[in-house]
Amino acid sequence: MSSDAGWVLGLDIGGSGSRIALAAGGADSGHAGGMRVVHGSRVGIASRGSSIPEVVDDLLDRAAAEWPEEWAAVGAIAVGATGAFTLIDDPHEVVRAIAARRSGAVAALATDAVTAHLGALAGSPGAVVAVGTGSVALGTDLGSVWRRVDGWGHLLGDRGAGSWIGREGLEAAMRQRDGVATDSSALLAAAIESFGAPETWPAQLYTRNDRAGVLGSFAGRVDALAAVGDAAAVRIMTAAGREVARTLVAALDPRLPRIASAVGGVFAAPAVPAASAPPPASVSGGAVAAPRGSSGAFTDAFTAAVGEAHPPIELRPPAGTPLDGAIRLARLLTSANPPAGHPEHLWLTTP
Amino acid sequence: MSSDAGWVLGLDIGGSGSRIALAAGGADSGHAGGMRVVHGSRVGIASRGSSIPEVVDDLLDRAAAEWPEEWAAVGAIAVGATGAFTLIDDPHEVVRAIAARRSGAVAALATDAVTAHLGALAGSPGAVVAVGTGSVALGTDLGSVWRRVDGWGHLLGDRGAGSWIGREGLEAAMRQRDGVATDSSALLAAAIESFGAPETWPAQLYTRNDRAGVLGSFAGRVDALAAVGDAAAVRIMTAAGREVARTLVAALDPRLPRIASAVGGVFAAPAVPAASAPPPASVSGGAVAAPRGSSGAFTDAFTAAVGEAHPPIELRPPAGTPLDGAIRLARLLTSANPPAGHPEHLWLTTP
Repeated sequence: MSSDAGWVLGLDIGGSGSRIALAAGGADSGHAGGMRVVHGSRVGIASRGSSIPEVVDDLLDRAAAEWPEEWAAVGAIAVGATGAFTLIDDPHEVVRAIAARRSGAVAALATDAVTAHLGALAGSPGAVVAVGTGSVALGTDLGSVWRRVDGWGHLLGDRGAGSWIGREGLEAAMRQRDGVATDSSALLAAAIESFGAPETWPAQLYTRNDRAGVLGSFAGRVDALAAVGDAAAVRIMTAAGREVARTLVAALDPRLPRIASAVGGVFAAPAVPAASAPPPASVSGGAVAAPRGSSGAFTDAFTAAVGEAHPPIELRPPAGTPLDGAIRLARLLTSANPPAGHPEHLWLTTP
Repeated sequence: MSSDAGWVLGLDIGGSGSRIALAAGGADSGHAGGMRVVHGSRVGIASRGSSIPEVVDDLLDRAAAEWPEEWAAVGAIAVGATGAFTLIDDPHEVVRAIAARRSGAVAALATDAVTAHLGALAGSPGAVVAVGTGSVALGTDLGSVWRRVDGWGHLLGDRGAGSWIGREGLEAAMRQRDGVATDSSALLAAAIESFGAPETWPAQLYTRNDRAGVLGSFAGRVDALAAVGDAAAVRIMTAAGREVARTLVAALDPRLPRIASAVGGVFAAPAVPAASAPPPASVSGGAVAAPRGSSGAFTDAFTAAVGEAHPPIELRPPAGTPLDGAIRLARLLTSANPPAGHPEHLWLTTP
């Protein structure tokens, strides 16, 4: 892969952190490979909405400073961000501002569900659930079918995600502190180790604009306790795995084409259709330790629940990360067959 | 009761609204009776902490404007506020600022649990659970015993309160929208009626600094659906009633004196002790419609769960509201036997 076709930037912006990757432009050759990555801060929500624009600006500043030569030859920038639809007033304005950072570049802003999908299924139609601080599933062919499930944030959903696991863990710890539960002493001890005396937790949490991230920061402790057999922690991790499986299954829109496993990309010619083949699905994420945690409780429950789905599902290991998906999207922007936008998932500028 | 002893002000500040009451000073004659009331805004939480000081200032401005003559003769101001301990950096500074508003006046800042207790049990030792947007129980004799349970806010606890009921209702509605639940169509329809399309809920909720209040605003709808027999809503209201009962029972510290029912005040000579008598307990609140809702599901579950407590509890109807309790506290400040402060519940200035 040469840089004759210039360079592309992919950004992945989530509740636990953000990353920007630089990769060679040109044809979308499958895995993003050979990309260089810089990390940035996590997204917050204030009264004016999500801080996505600020985090993007900061990451682009870092990219320009880190890779000054390549920056001058960047032809496409693609951003996948949590809350891009629900917490941004005008995504079109944001994507125009992104493009304006590099004269002549095209830009895309997508929900994190889209970049997770492009990373995990490498362009094939199907369903992908992205689990990190939040949890969102998207069943799509990036054409006519777009079924979104969850991704509603830590107060309305994000069922089974890091923030959900952390909240369940802290709620259980508080029940123990209050004397209304007796099975969560290990969770209480872990929470005190992480946050100090329970009386101080409200002030640490409610004054923050990244509460989901604070909650999610406790998920790894819950998983670690599940790994050593703590019953209350195992119960939470098992429930989380089941919730995420339900979210994934609900995203498998019956209109999605059933294609035989293997290659094929949504913008390439369709692979061999096979009416009897199960639709492909995958899991993405890992910003939070828990879903890929050491306990196995989450994964076991997830796999078992997906295995019970009717009709059956072909669960594939993820081909790449959401950051790979952002790079893939950036390359598609300058390809011969760029994607069309979607009013709830994908916003584009034209060259 | 004359105004020879001057006037007192009581303030009740919660997640759904606030009130200030003016009453005659002098001896604490039981029920606050004859007080005049002005309403104010609800409390919010920003990055610098709770907005209690701003809400108090605003209420005192209103009082000075509404009752200019009495204002000049105010001798005591008592404030009961949600989050006074957990979300205020220095409660002493806040109480000094309150006293400074009226030269010569004494002031008290208390958690809402204290004013709820003083209102509901009229000064008797025992346990009171205050249920509104949040939920907190306090078992106290206002002397040596102070057992607090819950009151941790909508992400860590407030189990069974308005914000908890509203969150459960909206989560269920989102499950229905996502196709992972099929029993919550009435909740989904009610939520759409209240907040519009589900895709807009995150922006309406996460950009607010009074999220608990927004969640709590849906509790009345859940209760109304329970009243017409909607199974999902009945389940939520029943669970809420049980949670609040557990919170109350956990607050009944065994060191609390068991006194025969009837009169007696914690600062008066103790009433006849009776080792065999059950400790008195009560419920306060009602800022949210739900706990006193029309469905009966909450109350039935609460009463049944309290009835199962061992040792048994004497459940009394509340003698007064938290606002009555604030007035009672203000009168106590200027009495011959004023209360002592407590580092987590009650902060005082001296005359």
